[in-house]
Amino acid sequence: MNRVPLPKTSPLPEPASALAELNPAPRLLMGPGPINADPRVLRAMGTPLIGQFDPQFRLMMRETMALFREVFATRNDWTLVADGTARAAIEMVMQSAIEPGDRVLVGSFGRFGQLLEEIARRCGAEVHIVQAEWGTVLDLAQFEAALKACSPKLVAVCQGDTSTTMMQPLEGLGELCHRHGALLQVDATATCGGAPLPADAWSVDAVTAGLQKCLGGPSGASPLTLSDAMARRIYHRRHIERGLQPADYLPGAGARIASNYMDLAMVMDYWSDAGLNHHTEATTMLYAARECGRIAVQEGLWAMFERHARVSRAVLAGVRAMGLEVYGDPAHKMPNVTGVRVPEGISADKVRQALLNDFNVEIGTSFGPLHGKVWRLGAMGYNARPDAVYTTLAALEAVLAAEGHRLPRGAGVDAAYASFKSVAPAA
Amino acid sequence: MNRVPLPKTSPLPEPASALAELNPAPRLLMGPGPINADPRVLRAMGTPLIGQFDPQFRLMMRETMALFREVFATRNDWTLVADGTARAAIEMVMQSAIEPGDRVLVGSFGRFGQLLEEIARRCGAEVHIVQAEWGTVLDLAQFEAALKACSPKLVAVCQGDTSTTMMQPLEGLGELCHRHGALLQVDATATCGGAPLPADAWSVDAVTAGLQKCLGGPSGASPLTLSDAMARRIYHRRHIERGLQPADYLPGAGARIASNYMDLAMVMDYWSDAGLNHHTEATTMLYAARECGRIAVQEGLWAMFERHARVSRAVLAGVRAMGLEVYGDPAHKMPNVTGVRVPEGISADKVRQALLNDFNVEIGTSFGPLHGKVWRLGAMGYNARPDAVYTTLAALEAVLAAEGHRLPRGAGVDAAYASFKSVAPAA
Repeated sequence: MNRVPLPKTSPLPEPASALAELNPAPRLLMGPGPINADPRVLRAMGTPLIGQFDPQFRLMMRETMALFREVFATRNDWTLVADGTARAAIEMVMQSAIEPGDRVLVGSFGRFGQLLEEIARRCGAEVHIVQAEWGTVLDLAQFEAALKACSPKLVAVCQGDTSTTMMQPLEGLGELCHRHGALLQVDATATCGGAPLPADAWSVDAVTAGLQKCLGGPSGASPLTLSDAMARRIYHRRHIERGLQPADYLPGAGARIASNYMDLAMVMDYWSDAGLNHHTEATTMLYAARECGRIAVQEGLWAMFERHARVSRAVLAGVRAMGLEVYGDPAHKMPNVTGVRVPEGISADKVRQALLNDFNVEIGTSFGPLHGKVWRLGAMGYNARPDAVYTTLAALEAVLAAEGHRLPRGAGVDAAYASFKSVAPAA
Repeated sequence: MNRVPLPKTSPLPEPASALAELNPAPRLLMGPGPINADPRVLRAMGTPLIGQFDPQFRLMMRETMALFREVFATRNDWTLVADGTARAAIEMVMQSAIEPGDRVLVGSFGRFGQLLEEIARRCGAEVHIVQAEWGTVLDLAQFEAALKACSPKLVAVCQGDTSTTMMQPLEGLGELCHRHGALLQVDATATCGGAPLPADAWSVDAVTAGLQKCLGGPSGASPLTLSDAMARRIYHRRHIERGLQPADYLPGAGARIASNYMDLAMVMDYWSDAGLNHHTEATTMLYAARECGRIAVQEGLWAMFERHARVSRAVLAGVRAMGLEVYGDPAHKMPNVTGVRVPEGISADKVRQALLNDFNVEIGTSFGPLHGKVWRLGAMGYNARPDAVYTTLAALEAVLAAEGHRLPRGAGVDAAYASFKSVAPAA
């Protein structure tokens, strides 16, 4: 039946009953994410469970909604946390907003733009692409031309695409989409908490995020916010499970959402005051999301953005002082990830392995055409700290030197140190 | 556009920045799940994160596969943990195995049978139902008649349906399905670790579970296992994202799986030795799943089943000694949940609220036709312990007495105590 052989998965040498408790090496995670979780988040995840319909838990859910309204700079009622990784949240919006045959315009400037395209196709959309060369971003005129050409119902774009380290300017795009009758969905997985994306001020209809980047948590729960227009479009397709329909149940209209788990109309009912049963909330991940939101709101979003920008300048200064070249358009680099070109004659993977195995420092490889040519250095969330940057640059220098690459010793750390000292953090 | 008004969600009285750290009440969770997580699992979730392609993490994934092969009593290669709650795992199997128009037979004996039906319909299946009256289960002859009548490609059934507390006997069903050309999917969310379901011996093609019931963890990650036949059916539809296709890429055939996140063929590639990128693994939930698996394998599956059976007998003895009536066919009761009929003149919800607010004990309400008529007492996973049973029965007795219900004082705890004492645990 199948011409593609099944993939392989190797068994363990020892019996499962002999496995010891977890004891991973103390890695410093300086790739494009996930990064080390804030210890506050890890502690919050040790909190004992309570029931999902316990009034105390329902209050925690509302608190988490309030926290992420601040993170997304929105008054949107429908600001909640999806139980799944960031791509689940992206897909929940698409599965719930796109009806088969709908035209969707994807702004693509890297691999995660390709992912938006791929998910939209799975939802049955007629997908149109406005494409930027990798290492660059799109401008509003390109979006406008594409909007005129295809009249989509939905425009989807990443704010930051870690595959190229580029960050798409988004101010004005929401209004532009609305003028052309489209709603705007932004994948902010990689930038939420690291760069401004005020959902209301920029008229974005859906923003999805992840905890594992600038927000300092683990992957697995994904905050999202929906404008009223998006919430209405989705709730219009409401369909409640047979066993749960209330007496006054009014089913929605339009094509039935093609997934139960991904049905945001049901997820909205679950998060509403009515608290209709849907999935069993992932209690510990909700605890994590709440703590990530609390950390962000306590630091202040603008202080977080400034911290990421300062770290970005220091990484750039350090990398350049080491004589390394930065990938992509520096005017549009994400603050939390920096692409570094692998010097001629150096094995990208060998360097990464030495950093990991000998220095306990993880940096990122690259996808597709950039694999072996570009490393990705991340500094975000809990790891957007001077000491984490110094440790990473010093380790990279030592490994490159051991590989026979000539570079000015000490220059990377010195330059990053000077960069941090030159701008005092906001009081 | 929308005749259904959006649901309500109440704002908080205080600003989000004023929210304190988590501090829930010390609830004893004795409903149908989630239950209190084993403290070992909570501690494991505090483990610092490492990268998802770190060799140490890939090893942890293989270890987790090995542990759940023991839990599911299978040699299936494709035994892994899905990043989502239990219904996500159910849907991943269905979205990946069902092509639109496929006939699917659902064995239904409660609300979670209705959920299987609902998910299969969303996958575009032509769904046929073989229905048992609530409070009873199906027999093989009923399945055989339905198999003959509709010739499905897939049969889906719950092992335990917590809505009715019934447990469906499954021995022989796999062979029966295979004789009729169907594969068998079992939702063991509520029973995995609490009752035997040897996937290989019983020829089950897909078993999905959750951590939050008998396995003593939080909701949010869901172990599953696929027989070779099921893995081949799913992998036959393999379709790799554009940005990740290897040079020797052979796309599969058949209808494209209608979800990216739910695409088990891609999840298999991700868990395989090749480790193709898909979602970003929910590290902390994987840690939780591994520790749940380790706890189960260390105790031994048969010892766990026997522990749940002993607790079930003690709960039954206690409830009956209090003069309360048990719901449903006792010969087919799940070991970990017991339905208790609410006595005449007693408000089911008022009793539950008093138990929660005054005694910190949570018991379960019921869905649909049973709401207000049946409580569900759970005793499973970490809470399948004598002391947890005694505390629950004593609290229920005190609340019922305070409500003016006459019952023999002390009889419930005494009977449960005697029940535990009458059978020594296996050495």
